Amino acid sequence: MSKVPYRVYLSEEEIPRKWYNLRADMKEQHEPYINPGTMKPAKAEDLYAVFCEELAKQEMDDKTRYVDIPEEVLNFYKIYRPSPLCRAYNLEKALDTPAKIYYKFEGNNTSGSHKLNSAVAQVYYAKKQGITSLTTETGAGQWGTALSEACAYFEIPLTVYMVKVSSQQKPYRKAIMETFGAKVIPSPSDTTEAGRAILAKNPNTGGSLGCAISEAIEHAVKTENCRYVLGSVLNQVLLHQSIIGLETKAAMEKIDTYPDIVIGCAGGGSNLGGLIAPFMQDKLTEKANPYFIAVEPASCPSLTRGKYAYDFCDTGKITPLAKMYTLGCEFIPSANHAGGLRYHGMSPILSKLYHDGYMDEARAVEQTRIFDAAALFAKYETILPAPESSHAIRVAIDEALKCKETGEAKTILFGLTGTGYFDMQAYIQYNENKMSDYIPTDEDLQKGFDALPSIPGIQD
Amino acid sequence: MSKVPYRVYLSEEEIPRKWYNLRADMKEQHEPYINPGTMKPAKAEDLYAVFCEELAKQEMDDKTRYVDIPEEVLNFYKIYRPSPLCRAYNLEKALDTPAKIYYKFEGNNTSGSHKLNSAVAQVYYAKKQGITSLTTETGAGQWGTALSEACAYFEIPLTVYMVKVSSQQKPYRKAIMETFGAKVIPSPSDTTEAGRAILAKNPNTGGSLGCAISEAIEHAVKTENCRYVLGSVLNQVLLHQSIIGLETKAAMEKIDTYPDIVIGCAGGGSNLGGLIAPFMQDKLTEKANPYFIAVEPASCPSLTRGKYAYDFCDTGKITPLAKMYTLGCEFIPSANHAGGLRYHGMSPILSKLYHDGYMDEARAVEQTRIFDAAALFAKYETILPAPESSHAIRVAIDEALKCKETGEAKTILFGLTGTGYFDMQAYIQYNENKMSDYIPTDEDLQKGFDALPSIPGIQD
Repeated sequence: MSKVPYRVYLSEEEIPRKWYNLRADMKEQHEPYINPGTMKPAKAEDLYAVFCEELAKQEMDDKTRYVDIPEEVLNFYKIYRPSPLCRAYNLEKALDTPAKIYYKFEGNNTSGSHKLNSAVAQVYYAKKQGITSLTTETGAGQWGTALSEACAYFEIPLTVYMVKVSSQQKPYRKAIMETFGAKVIPSPSDTTEAGRAILAKNPNTGGSLGCAISEAIEHAVKTENCRYVLGSVLNQVLLHQSIIGLETKAAMEKIDTYPDIVIGCAGGGSNLGGLIAPFMQDKLTEKANPYFIAVEPASCPSLTRGKYAYDFCDTGKITPLAKMYTLGCEFIPSANHAGGLRYHGMSPILSKLYHDGYMDEARAVEQTRIFDAAALFAKYETILPAPESSHAIRVAIDEALKCKETGEAKTILFGLTGTGYFDMQAYIQYNENKMSDYIPTDEDLQKGFDALPSIPGIQD
Repeated sequence: MSKVPYRVYLSEEEIPRKWYNLRADMKEQHEPYINPGTMKPAKAEDLYAVFCEELAKQEMDDKTRYVDIPEEVLNFYKIYRPSPLCRAYNLEKALDTPAKIYYKFEGNNTSGSHKLNSAVAQVYYAKKQGITSLTTETGAGQWGTALSEACAYFEIPLTVYMVKVSSQQKPYRKAIMETFGAKVIPSPSDTTEAGRAILAKNPNTGGSLGCAISEAIEHAVKTENCRYVLGSVLNQVLLHQSIIGLETKAAMEKIDTYPDIVIGCAGGGSNLGGLIAPFMQDKLTEKANPYFIAVEPASCPSLTRGKYAYDFCDTGKITPLAKMYTLGCEFIPSANHAGGLRYHGMSPILSKLYHDGYMDEARAVEQTRIFDAAALFAKYETILPAPESSHAIRVAIDEALKCKETGEAKTILFGLTGTGYFDMQAYIQYNENKMSDYIPTDEDLQKGFDALPSIPGIQD
């Protein structure tokens, strides 16, 4: 019998009672948001039209280290948390590696991913403020599903703008959101000015996350007592997602271990930011020095090939501007890109940490290599992973194989953000050898950079 | 803070090390299987052509009370077990019932159901015997997926005959089995004599579980060193599935409770038989007297409207005959029936227990009422249930509402066998108000009864 079990579960009592705000320990904060109306740094009040007040405050708060998780949110967490920390014994054996591989599995809930952690928090605060409807965007559909679940639970009507190509590739994602009572509109749509403008320019577009965000925000601003909620990128989301890292660290303490390498897939940064939070705290406070790797698709390489610059968070250019690694808010990944991680930018917090050298490395990987890793993982760990999560799997396998060469028994931790049950169309492509890779050329990327906004005195 | 947590997890150490064989405590055994070649009672050896030897022995063994779970099987169990015992606090609150509702959730694995519990055992024994390929049938697809996972893990090639109408309704179920390396053939097919005979009689048939079983068995018998494995009905399957009930009972002991009512959905009986096993032991040995309810679809009502008679286990009439509640092996549920639980018969063990009055009650429910319960459950417990599982949910809700009327605080336990992520087509029908009910007429059923086999001196 192995000393470390295959699955480490915390008890309900051990679920963290507070989220951890990484910014409280950062040496330098990310550059301030810019109000697109005034082109001056934004205040919390500037965000009230879009976000509910408590969330706007969390967005701006870089001082409060620990934030109490409200009881109502905690009670929801108890339905599907703690999530297991898993030791990948079978994968280790299959790879014949001396490395010890752990993954934090966030897929054991109906949304199929970690997105539920922030969805329930955001819906709770909205309900508390008396907001009567919500709106959001979704790409691959995990966030939309998570928010639908939370809105059904707290009984708030929800409208989801779903990236059109995703809604076509994943009709059942749409159906599951509708089962939870959400209204789902493929984006770009003719229901908003932003959508109509994009359709006029490019009638056959499959849409993009940035474009769906624009439509959702416009919907929120124009509908009485409605607010917009977002599943990634924002500081508030990273705060809520810190539950992932906090549980992981507590579980690792139980089995008396600590990661040498921490790996997360990175789209907007919600899972990566949440997973690494307490380990990054150790690094910032010089208690430990784990090596962090962010993994992104080669077809949407914001950290590895993007610019660190102010940009809009949405294609419609109505959100505040954030300083982040970005491909330009008009960047849309190639249609052959499967799954999520299709956002043009990256969390301002993670961007800052990467820029300042605390996030050690970013790696971009082609999707056929991602699916190779997914199929191998499924076979030995018997979990069918989401394409997003499989980015982290790929690099965890690569690092474990390096250990095999060097003989080092490193402890590798990665975030298994979710399951691929609604991604079977992509798996069919892969199974039938019809999946291809696409890497944007420098010229492709230059178009996005050329469109970056100019801000007088700040960014020319 | 509630005393009983939302989720009760056993530790890895507490996973049962032995399966429990309910037959060892039954006052009377079910009538013997009949060899269809000789029309005499079958011996274990008669089954060796179809089943591997260890499984054939388990099928016949009504003496051994506890069977050691092999270490290789246990190591696989540790990847996804123990499964949680859940307290449905939110559902109780929504129903405003004094009842305490618990469910054992078997859906937290990629097969999405409890079927994996027996799949891994059957594949292990086949591998151990040196069997080089396996074949099976699948209806709704949970069993086929589970077996694909187990075969990938133990590296044995697998051919799955999938009921044609299911393979059309659920293309992604097919894809997930293929991702795990299985070959999937819609049934009836032209690859077997049984399939060709059925197609000649009825070229447009959507297939049935019995028919797919016939094809799989023919494939197994005609392929060298190949064996057939089945996910329900059989005694060996109920033995493996006893892990569900054993874990449930251990978890309930931890929180110092015991069920007044135990509810399970019933198709072939694999989940129901596994869930109730140790509680039925208590009843048989007069230690306790829980009330058992089997829930079946009104469109396939073997317990409530079937005959207790000898019948073939398959439409092709090549399996041993079993005495069981049956609608006749040629019975095929209406095409509008969604999900699984479409088998014409019922586990011989459960049939015997029902016939002798130990299984207290069987209830048949229409599918629109099933989906009403599923949607309500999803909203409050945030798990999207499989249609099969929702049969148990429906009756648990009905019983909890009775408690509301009487004021009784009964403890209700039901089996949540799995998730509905691959059943979205049925949910779409339901969401769009296009789902209808079908209850077979007495005349419909009489056709099935007229076709029951005659066995000289045993059944005329």
